[in-house]
Amino acid sequence: MNSDRPPSPVERFVFLVDKNLAQRLKRDERPGKSLVSAARYTCMAPGAKRARPRLVFHFGEAVAASEDARLAIAECAELIHAASLVHDDVIDDGVMRRGQETVNVLFSNLTAVLAGDLMFSVAFGLLSPYRPDVMYTAVEVLGAMTRAAIDEVEARGDVDLSLEDWRAIAAGKTGALFGWCGAAPALAAGDDDAAARFRRAGEHLGVAFQLADDLKDLAPMGNKDRFADLLNKNPSYPILWSAARSPVFEAALRRRWSREVSPEHAAELGQAVLASGAADATSRALHDEVDAAFDALGDLKDAPGVAAVANWARALLAASTVHQEAA
Amino acid sequence: MNSDRPPSPVERFVFLVDKNLAQRLKRDERPGKSLVSAARYTCMAPGAKRARPRLVFHFGEAVAASEDARLAIAECAELIHAASLVHDDVIDDGVMRRGQETVNVLFSNLTAVLAGDLMFSVAFGLLSPYRPDVMYTAVEVLGAMTRAAIDEVEARGDVDLSLEDWRAIAAGKTGALFGWCGAAPALAAGDDDAAARFRRAGEHLGVAFQLADDLKDLAPMGNKDRFADLLNKNPSYPILWSAARSPVFEAALRRRWSREVSPEHAAELGQAVLASGAADATSRALHDEVDAAFDALGDLKDAPGVAAVANWARALLAASTVHQEAA
Repeated sequence: MNSDRPPSPVERFVFLVDKNLAQRLKRDERPGKSLVSAARYTCMAPGAKRARPRLVFHFGEAVAASEDARLAIAECAELIHAASLVHDDVIDDGVMRRGQETVNVLFSNLTAVLAGDLMFSVAFGLLSPYRPDVMYTAVEVLGAMTRAAIDEVEARGDVDLSLEDWRAIAAGKTGALFGWCGAAPALAAGDDDAAARFRRAGEHLGVAFQLADDLKDLAPMGNKDRFADLLNKNPSYPILWSAARSPVFEAALRRRWSREVSPEHAAELGQAVLASGAADATSRALHDEVDAAFDALGDLKDAPGVAAVANWARALLAASTVHQEAA
Repeated sequence: MNSDRPPSPVERFVFLVDKNLAQRLKRDERPGKSLVSAARYTCMAPGAKRARPRLVFHFGEAVAASEDARLAIAECAELIHAASLVHDDVIDDGVMRRGQETVNVLFSNLTAVLAGDLMFSVAFGLLSPYRPDVMYTAVEVLGAMTRAAIDEVEARGDVDLSLEDWRAIAAGKTGALFGWCGAAPALAAGDDDAAARFRRAGEHLGVAFQLADDLKDLAPMGNKDRFADLLNKNPSYPILWSAARSPVFEAALRRRWSREVSPEHAAELGQAVLASGAADATSRALHDEVDAAFDALGDLKDAPGVAAVANWARALLAASTVHQEAA
């Protein structure tokens, strides 16, 4: 990227979202208080891609939502996302101590819990200047995300999880908030038809995002945690697809997952997943979700900002193909 | 109480709130899912006094709020209260493992966190049929409660906490939701003036409730956990009052709280608190809060349901006097 070029509108928007988040979490800070530090630490993580604010920006453009509404909704989405990560990372009595520098480790479990609660409150509070159903739908998203989070925990190690169950978890965990990032700007702009279409499209894109993530775990290049899903007994789409396809693989997976999994066993299972053609199947599922997203958009496919969303989805597809070819 | 007597309107109301909560948490239950079980376990605890639903019922009567609105608000308040208890009980890496049968022990930390999140979502969702600011103010209450919860954790063992800081914590922890139990039915009924008055009155009553709780810790009768605040380094109002009053006690407290406190040391400090006249001072503060609550009500003091709130406050005062005399 040429650094002399002025920032694009979406980059300018993401910069504003970052700035507002940083300011909001600073204003609130009192000396010696750890809560806001924890929230800040999570929200301002340097690697944050701000996928949700980008969706809000582009979908908002399509319905000419005001910049104020788009900023509030984007900030809210990022806070809900970050708060859900903080809560997911609370240590489960040593059962799933996965991260190393999560909030609960740096601060404490209780701080992580309360920081997340504060973020939910601040997030919803940002929506009060807009149509009431902007907040109502955000509250529903929290419910969907929470139910999916527990389903995901309870699915850990479950070889018998169906692909439909996998999709329901992905739709709740990622799709609900992606869908809201589309619906909320449309609701704020008073366009109920666009809201319904963007919600459905966003949900499909969220599931696509999750499929791309599952594929990434199989990719060999620059992937030092390759096959982490197999190691952590996380039943990803390709793993479940292989298990449904091959009784031999299913039996091997069941045997391995019934006890502690070594990195060597994970690698061995990973090669079996790849040999079964699961990467290809996952890529096809990803294409199907992106197609379904565009079907849901109908005529709005050609609206100004939606083209940028389409480009984003195409990049997701292209990346998944690269992973797959390399795999 | 005579069991032949038909239930009073408020008892019938509390029964309905219980029934609705149980139904709501049942409908949602799926086989093998622990999340709703955890929520249910917390909400349907047999000892729940339903203080918040009672406030909603009586304040709602004063402004003739519909029964639907009152039920939704009462259920919401009880869910927010229960969710905050679940989150407060998340084990802080062994630092403050106080309860024995809390959700995090029976289920797991992660289940406790997610159960609380689900309860917040369900709670707020109940409010969408009413004026939008009913939900907006509930979201603000979550923020106030969360900030107070972390302040309370950080105040643990703090001998230098001022009585003003103590009050701010009590106002956030208990007063904010009590105030909302008054304000929300008034907002739903479209009475903004009553909402503002009930909010202030409820906040004072919440602080009074907290003072009564602090006093109870000093009471000898039927109190097997007497002086738990001193044992757990929880700076209660009477403890802080004694420390502010007596430099000798303050020095002793600081010395004891700088290391592990034995039950014997807690009892010894407790006797010093009582000898300083702190129970009397706490009772005076409780009276002042109740007076302030009635001042805030203005002419609404004489409205129908408010008399029942007044009786409740008087019972709080009477009980505190008993504790104090027995102490």
